[in-house]
Amino acid sequence: MDFEELIKRRRAIRDYLPKEVPLSIIHDILDDTRFAPSARNGQPCKFVIVRDKTWISRLSKESKASLLKKIKENPTSPLATYASILSDDGFNVFYNAPCLILICVPKDLASGDYDSALAAAYLMFSAANRGLGTCWIGLGSHLENPDTLKDLGIPSDHRIAAPIILGYPKEIPPASDRHDPIILNILDSR
Amino acid sequence: MDFEELIKRRRAIRDYLPKEVPLSIIHDILDDTRFAPSARNGQPCKFVIVRDKTWISRLSKESKASLLKKIKENPTSPLATYASILSDDGFNVFYNAPCLILICVPKDLASGDYDSALAAAYLMFSAANRGLGTCWIGLGSHLENPDTLKDLGIPSDHRIAAPIILGYPKEIPPASDRHDPIILNILDSR
Repeated sequence: MDFEELIKRRRAIRDYLPKEVPLSIIHDILDDTRFAPSARNGQPCKFVIVRDKTWISRLSKESKASLLKKIKENPTSPLATYASILSDDGFNVFYNAPCLILICVPKDLASGDYDSALAAAYLMFSAANRGLGTCWIGLGSHLENPDTLKDLGIPSDHRIAAPIILGYPKEIPPASDRHDPIILNILDSR
Repeated sequence: MDFEELIKRRRAIRDYLPKEVPLSIIHDILDDTRFAPSARNGQPCKFVIVRDKTWISRLSKESKASLLKKIKENPTSPLATYASILSDDGFNVFYNAPCLILICVPKDLASGDYDSALAAAYLMFSAANRGLGTCWIGLGSHLENPDTLKDLGIPSDHRIAAPIILGYPKEIPPASDRHDPIILNILDSR
């Protein structure tokens, strides 16, 4: 797909067809994701692929519990705006997507946020290029239970940076409105 | 350009033709960059466009001074590996590129690293799609002089997250080697 088309087709998708994403396609997407730049070409990202509904449901429940605990401890946190929906038993943080990919990076890596976001951009474009939808679930990076993280296969010196849901979209809405670029200054020699 | 081709053509470019990038093209690239996802669709990125060689040279000198100061204060910092090249008067942090775009975000925005990196990915793809080269200059985000930041037009409550150089590449090297994706775990229902 042409890039100009792709930036319009890559949308945050939260409503998926009940159709599994073949593992071979996930491998192809991760192959594309390798080409993301990273600080000093460190290529630090590691991936957990979750294709099991029971697991995704467990991770949603634990994310909600962890987030509600954080909100209780710090009621002025920006997370507090989510308190109501997080208390809703019917709300799945991962929107019942058929697949969840957790992009993990070393906890002590200064460039971890940047490196994981660049990998996430490649992953989301590669998925959109194959007709798949994705959504970065910020609320999904608050998992804290060491047993859960261990069961997921995440080493104790790594963290979940970017949880991305993946699946076949029920629909791809048109590109959303964006404000004009905010240009603070143009420093020109002329 | 097809996305599969684009991920191979988007390379870190540090050697540029002495050819100015038209401002109209920069505006087109920033228009594409608007479509980057951001946490809660906050669209927080703001841009400084530097097309003046004297300015870029000043920012390089100040970045080097600031970095050498940090290394002196903390000799075990990972930055210390750059001490030798940063002391070289002939080294320009921004590789004498004809253009530098500074992506800035609010200092107090928790998702600032992620949001700016996603915008940077869009910017770098959009540039590559137009035959331009880019390179994210991590060393360029260490500018500290408040007067310089003010002269750049960056509000005191914002920071430089992603400094990206931009120009016409002398050559586009073939895609660099990457290691295979590191998959920590596949949690499957089958």
